[in-house]
Amino acid sequence: MLKLKRVAIDTYGANVAFISRTCTIYRPEEYQPFNKIKVIHNGQSLLSSLMVVDDQAIVADDELGLSEQAFARLGVAGGETAAIAPAEQPRSVDHIREKIHGHTLDAHQLEEIVADLAAHRLSEMEIAAFLVASAGFMTTDEMISLTKAMSKVGNQLSWRAPVVVDKHCIGGIPGNRTSMIVVPIVAAHGLPIPKSSSRAITSPAGTADTMEVLAKVDLSMHDMQRVVDECSGCLVWGGHVNLSPADDVMISVERPLSIDTREQMVASIMSKKMAAGSTHLLIDIPIGPSSKVKSHGDAMRLRKLFEYVGREVGLHVEVVTTDGSQPIGRGIGPVLEARDVMAVLEGAPEAPTDLREKSLQLAGALLENDPALKGGSGYARARELLENGEALKAMNRIIDAQGRKTEIPCTGELTFDVLAKAAGKVMAIDCFRINRLARFAGAPMDVGAGIDLFKKVGDVVEIGDPLYRIHACFESDFGFAKKFADEGDAYTIDGKV
Amino acid sequence: MLKLKRVAIDTYGANVAFISRTCTIYRPEEYQPFNKIKVIHNGQSLLSSLMVVDDQAIVADDELGLSEQAFARLGVAGGETAAIAPAEQPRSVDHIREKIHGHTLDAHQLEEIVADLAAHRLSEMEIAAFLVASAGFMTTDEMISLTKAMSKVGNQLSWRAPVVVDKHCIGGIPGNRTSMIVVPIVAAHGLPIPKSSSRAITSPAGTADTMEVLAKVDLSMHDMQRVVDECSGCLVWGGHVNLSPADDVMISVERPLSIDTREQMVASIMSKKMAAGSTHLLIDIPIGPSSKVKSHGDAMRLRKLFEYVGREVGLHVEVVTTDGSQPIGRGIGPVLEARDVMAVLEGAPEAPTDLREKSLQLAGALLENDPALKGGSGYARARELLENGEALKAMNRIIDAQGRKTEIPCTGELTFDVLAKAAGKVMAIDCFRINRLARFAGAPMDVGAGIDLFKKVGDVVEIGDPLYRIHACFESDFGFAKKFADEGDAYTIDGKV
Repeated sequence: MLKLKRVAIDTYGANVAFISRTCTIYRPEEYQPFNKIKVIHNGQSLLSSLMVVDDQAIVADDELGLSEQAFARLGVAGGETAAIAPAEQPRSVDHIREKIHGHTLDAHQLEEIVADLAAHRLSEMEIAAFLVASAGFMTTDEMISLTKAMSKVGNQLSWRAPVVVDKHCIGGIPGNRTSMIVVPIVAAHGLPIPKSSSRAITSPAGTADTMEVLAKVDLSMHDMQRVVDECSGCLVWGGHVNLSPADDVMISVERPLSIDTREQMVASIMSKKMAAGSTHLLIDIPIGPSSKVKSHGDAMRLRKLFEYVGREVGLHVEVVTTDGSQPIGRGIGPVLEARDVMAVLEGAPEAPTDLREKSLQLAGALLENDPALKGGSGYARARELLENGEALKAMNRIIDAQGRKTEIPCTGELTFDVLAKAAGKVMAIDCFRINRLARFAGAPMDVGAGIDLFKKVGDVVEIGDPLYRIHACFESDFGFAKKFADEGDAYTIDGKV
Repeated sequence: MLKLKRVAIDTYGANVAFISRTCTIYRPEEYQPFNKIKVIHNGQSLLSSLMVVDDQAIVADDELGLSEQAFARLGVAGGETAAIAPAEQPRSVDHIREKIHGHTLDAHQLEEIVADLAAHRLSEMEIAAFLVASAGFMTTDEMISLTKAMSKVGNQLSWRAPVVVDKHCIGGIPGNRTSMIVVPIVAAHGLPIPKSSSRAITSPAGTADTMEVLAKVDLSMHDMQRVVDECSGCLVWGGHVNLSPADDVMISVERPLSIDTREQMVASIMSKKMAAGSTHLLIDIPIGPSSKVKSHGDAMRLRKLFEYVGREVGLHVEVVTTDGSQPIGRGIGPVLEARDVMAVLEGAPEAPTDLREKSLQLAGALLENDPALKGGSGYARARELLENGEALKAMNRIIDAQGRKTEIPCTGELTFDVLAKAAGKVMAIDCFRINRLARFAGAPMDVGAGIDLFKKVGDVVEIGDPLYRIHACFESDFGFAKKFADEGDAYTIDGKV
């Protein structure tokens, strides 16, 4: 038996065990070729990859080192004894192999895969193998089974209300922070809307990043429940709520590989909403040339899929398509977006009308789910709650319940205005390029970094008119962003790029 | 810039960089979500994964730690300065994505993938994605391009001789050490046969493991060339020769996932033989119920594929099918197999006749490629060289040239005889189970561990007759092996298992 030791290395979620090359009890060269080993302590076992150490200061010959996450998962204090053994491959790897060889999987097999995903028992290569094989083909039965399995494997929220609503947007549109307006409107009406959101991974801001400018968002499931009980709604980060841990693991592999199939997207979204206890879900599909969904036909196919799965898993789904041809609002990046959101809620004259109007449409559609409301009056009710200040009050209640930030950070102090190179009408704005530019400027890491748009599609500009302002917090980012904008400003004016 | 430091952690081939969480120059949280970072030193760059360290003794705030392999690859002494940057994904990941989405790849795209594989620029998940997508479908054009690209990316051997032969066996049969008899026979005739072999990964011994009982096998390419120049043949481990580095990388992912398509196997074998400068290749396909190839039909399809690829890449391929229904020879495990091989070469009366006969058949087929030899006389010539002791002399020359082991290890001293539970004729021996049993006994790590078979298919036994002897070197392995044999002895006697 070896003595457990915490090795202060953060492996970003992966379990790593360390043993000395001259370990007196195990022969590391015998274990190293295995994909994984099993660390056995006190009846518990933890799958882990193995690294061999040639430095007694990191692990001595009678020690078994564990990376920070692995150590925490085992819940030990250090100094306890543990054994290691070559890990048998989890049984779900056999199912993954079947899938690779073209078989379809049944509900039980998918449950085993999802359970192993959620428990971090599969390696990155095994996860990639499952995702790529599933991207090759996935039957609707498989998709339904996968969705159900994913929704059951993590925490599950439940609410006393008969109608619990939620919304989700198929992303890609910069500045599209409607959730932060829709949630307070719906909550002001009294309909529960337990919204959890993601942080940005490849975009300049996720709803969680923008909300975090105003309030604490990394709430536990318990705190999320409390905030919704108090305020009818919340705007929290999904990361601590653990509603679909298998999805979180899959996303960590989907992103770098850009595997992005409709089936996996639908399973991912629906499983999270089911676990959150929603009964009525509104899906917003923006359509545009640089948006995720590029044509009306694609949007319709996706809608059918959402509706089909919704019917099978017992979740009422409504799908709306929206304009995804250009950014929504003006600000892109956490602080700038939070500014736009609050301007809409406060009814400020400078509030972006497109963000306001889209939010009202979505909130209206959600309010239609209230049986007490007369059919067709959802939009008018949403507008009433925004205009009479009830939505703003609801937002402030939510901010206070989650934990108000005492100080709002400033926008990045390094600024640069990108000027129109041609005169004429703005014909198009490339969302993809605007997102990358805001990333280069430092968003979302630097919350004050980003882009402030002055011109939108349809506006008429003269040569030299400012199109947008870049905000950055660090010289290096500022330089990158200016250079990137110089190579292409993302605007098409009068047909000329 | 950070100061480079060697962190004495062996990551089994992967590049890992370590920076302090409180690093003063970079913000590790900004880099950690990326799949890989780029370590830039002196115009060189190295792709690496990143771990964040909370222990100044491992890396200080102004240091950049590198795992042993990464440090060696960068070829530094420590203390030099280096920068890091988020790594752009290698361009070949785009090609892998295309493959995932069902496109076929052209020669140039496959060359880029192979180059990135060989240079360790792809992550395990990216490699898995490529392999799984390719397992879904692969055109013959893709397979030819892949084979050619793989053969060109590593070292390449060349020989002055017009005919250079080689053999390869599609594995799975315990004790099948024909190469160690075929090579000396062919070399004794004077035909060059530059044989490189693998070590066991999941089997109880590879040819390299068994040869290592007698001689040094981890030769450099330079030494391999010298041995073949001196002796006409060699029996070295392929690991240091680096003939198909992309293949080595792919295998590290194929094994744990058990991805084992015909196309990938053919590309793997052919690319190595092309790089070794062979002109004539003999492929041995054992057919049997617990062998890799289970039916004559499968063997024929595989033969066609080998022949087709051989024609396209300019390598003469001959395929023979052999009996794969039971182990070959008696010993299983490095020392026991080496004993059988030497017995055959020495013409000892106890030499296993099946191993001798199969080796003569294969050597004869290879000798037929010598234009100086009369057609059909290969077998007789092989037998002559074995019986007149020339083959044994050639083997001793090869052993001396590679570096003779001064001491032959003993067989494992812990022994246990497994006895027949029924009387009758041995109908079948389960190769798969025999392999696992020998592994449990400690082979190939403990070279003296393994199994010594006393009875083969067709032998008649009484209840209590010893079927085979288990040899182990350690009590724990011995216990595992006895228990495993107790659960099933792998013998079918008179129709009863």
